[in-house]
Amino acid sequence: MTQLEIMGANAKNASVFLRTAGSKKDDALLAIAKALREHSDEIIKANEIDIENGKNAGLTESLLDRLRLTPERINGMAEGVEQVAALADPIGNVLEGRTLKNGLNIEKVRVPMGVIGIIFEARPNVTSDAAALCLKAGSAVILRGGKEAINSNLAVSEIMRNAVESVGFPKDCIALVKDTSRQSATELMQLSDYLDVLIPRGGAGLIRSVVENAKVPVIETGVGNCHIYVDESADVQMAANIIFNAKTSRPSVCNAIETILVHKNIAQKALPEIKKLLDTKNVEIRGCETTRKILGDSVIPATEEDYAKEFLDYILAVKVVDSLDDAIDHIAKYSTGHSESIITNDYNNANKFTACVDSAAVYVNASTRFTDGGEFGLGAEIGISTQKLHARGPMGLNELTSCKFIIRGNGQIR
Amino acid sequence: MTQLEIMGANAKNASVFLRTAGSKKDDALLAIAKALREHSDEIIKANEIDIENGKNAGLTESLLDRLRLTPERINGMAEGVEQVAALADPIGNVLEGRTLKNGLNIEKVRVPMGVIGIIFEARPNVTSDAAALCLKAGSAVILRGGKEAINSNLAVSEIMRNAVESVGFPKDCIALVKDTSRQSATELMQLSDYLDVLIPRGGAGLIRSVVENAKVPVIETGVGNCHIYVDESADVQMAANIIFNAKTSRPSVCNAIETILVHKNIAQKALPEIKKLLDTKNVEIRGCETTRKILGDSVIPATEEDYAKEFLDYILAVKVVDSLDDAIDHIAKYSTGHSESIITNDYNNANKFTACVDSAAVYVNASTRFTDGGEFGLGAEIGISTQKLHARGPMGLNELTSCKFIIRGNGQIR
Repeated sequence: MTQLEIMGANAKNASVFLRTAGSKKDDALLAIAKALREHSDEIIKANEIDIENGKNAGLTESLLDRLRLTPERINGMAEGVEQVAALADPIGNVLEGRTLKNGLNIEKVRVPMGVIGIIFEARPNVTSDAAALCLKAGSAVILRGGKEAINSNLAVSEIMRNAVESVGFPKDCIALVKDTSRQSATELMQLSDYLDVLIPRGGAGLIRSVVENAKVPVIETGVGNCHIYVDESADVQMAANIIFNAKTSRPSVCNAIETILVHKNIAQKALPEIKKLLDTKNVEIRGCETTRKILGDSVIPATEEDYAKEFLDYILAVKVVDSLDDAIDHIAKYSTGHSESIITNDYNNANKFTACVDSAAVYVNASTRFTDGGEFGLGAEIGISTQKLHARGPMGLNELTSCKFIIRGNGQIR
Repeated sequence: MTQLEIMGANAKNASVFLRTAGSKKDDALLAIAKALREHSDEIIKANEIDIENGKNAGLTESLLDRLRLTPERINGMAEGVEQVAALADPIGNVLEGRTLKNGLNIEKVRVPMGVIGIIFEARPNVTSDAAALCLKAGSAVILRGGKEAINSNLAVSEIMRNAVESVGFPKDCIALVKDTSRQSATELMQLSDYLDVLIPRGGAGLIRSVVENAKVPVIETGVGNCHIYVDESADVQMAANIIFNAKTSRPSVCNAIETILVHKNIAQKALPEIKKLLDTKNVEIRGCETTRKILGDSVIPATEEDYAKEFLDYILAVKVVDSLDDAIDHIAKYSTGHSESIITNDYNNANKFTACVDSAAVYVNASTRFTDGGEFGLGAEIGISTQKLHARGPMGLNELTSCKFIIRGNGQIR
């Protein structure tokens, strides 16, 4: 057996324990939170090595910032774990049930997934976030973070493993892959004997690699080429406010918009208002010909690639369209199926947009920035699924579970 | 573009139409049923070619029987399509919803999956069954049947395509892959730009090949190494009746049992009763040492492989176990996660078995043969999922759908 197969087998054993752990899972989570705070210095020492290595490797200041842990951030990680402990347990919920004519009593019950794999990139706080959610959902977790954060991740995961053990849980409820080579990632993607699902959290490159290489069922997350369509009937000021918010409140996240589509009959009036707000944050506009006619030559001509791109930056592509149908077609062609919004006062157009746009979250008159487990009231979030199978949109605890049928009889045969 | 990519693109276009087709889908289904009856002769003519080819290729009589279509069987296919038309439309169901503090109204709504691929083996009736279920669930379908049934499948699919067109639907709501080579199957498994999910229906070899080669999300179906555990406290006659039913009522299906586990304290009493019934159908017993001590040398010694095998035949593996825990461990090791049953009068053992056995359907005092969409009251069934993601157990219309969030506001920003 390879190292990873041994880790998989151990995680599978631990998952058997978790299946019936019930509310003791909360004791384990509270023990983790306590241990993270108590071992804060230790974590920071390990993190300093990562920061030093990162500087030597020439990481940008923004990447170093994502990587950096402080006492406040570690306290935030502990608080996150405590919040997960406070959520209702999804396991054991009866999703549906009935008694059949033959007297069989049949129930569909929420059960743990088993073993969940999470592949993620540079942020070490994901280690505790993801582990806490998986544990609460009754599953063992195998974490594989980026090499930049390996020392921090190792420290955090060892502290968590010892913490769960201190309340009688198997350490292997939580495991971290120490080998951060590309091979270890590929091997994890193919660990189908032990992993029930694999969730990649990170950029488009990571997601693509997982989808292409995985033999384990995957839930794709996070890539968001999001759109706002300004309908002919839109309130111009509302449109400008929402676009400004959706583009500039946090451009680096997946629910920020990358392209706006503006109906030709409102473009003359709306585009200058929109630009006025965007200019306050120096947003670069890449527009179609009509956009440039209206807004002037300061607008960079948009290319095909601009419409397909997730800028994650202060850049916005703009296209003037002839109709709602054209907007829907553009979105069908370029969207990654994350979040799209229509700004409109027209009842039928609102309904048509929500029915025809095939994305995880479709909005009317609101910012796409709300696509988030916390904002949606799911309590916590492991990621945002952009695929249609199993989970779509923000994934909370329920999406980390499976179900099974339990059938009780008194001798029924068929 | 390859032929299959063109087919995928056409199906994706058709799926846009289906997204808002509403109850007109039932008109299309009734048109299909009518057309199947009207063109019965044509289908039978095509089927005769398959039968002739099958005879020349040396297919067994039971395979030829699965392949054969008669006027009655075609009428049965038409009735199946009418039954699907009569089911409630799953699309548009609001799964949950709430109004957030900021006034946003958020709903999670059931929506079509998009394009569904089905890979199946020799039975031509699957062509109309699968197409009807996908259509009702609002998705376009790409079917790829086995080469043995290609002429029958082509006839049936052309009739269905014309029928849906006659009521104003795009033909490409239903498509059949004409090329039955292994390459075409592999290409279909990797058609991720167009397929939202791929469902293999068939034997263990097909399922394994799909899981290993697919880049498209897959729902594994059907392989069933099912167990019955006879607890110390079982009613012996009930145990014998249920085992007899689960093994012999239809040994070739996935919900038939392959192994029984018998508690050592009841084996002496139960095994002869069980054997007495099984002998009436000449079931071959492959047993552990203790089983052979009790039942005699007519019992073949069971090997490790026997416990791992889906016999799909009048063969049953038998093992005497020391405890409920040993039974649970044996099932964890050998089960494919389909259906398992405990026969017991002990309340705690019943609860422990249902909690600890990690299979799609877990029974107490009933035959595993009930694991079936029709029996469970789902109305129809596309297959039985043995994976934990998205769908588990019998899959009906709901399991062929996805969901999305629709969020309505009046200018909310974050």
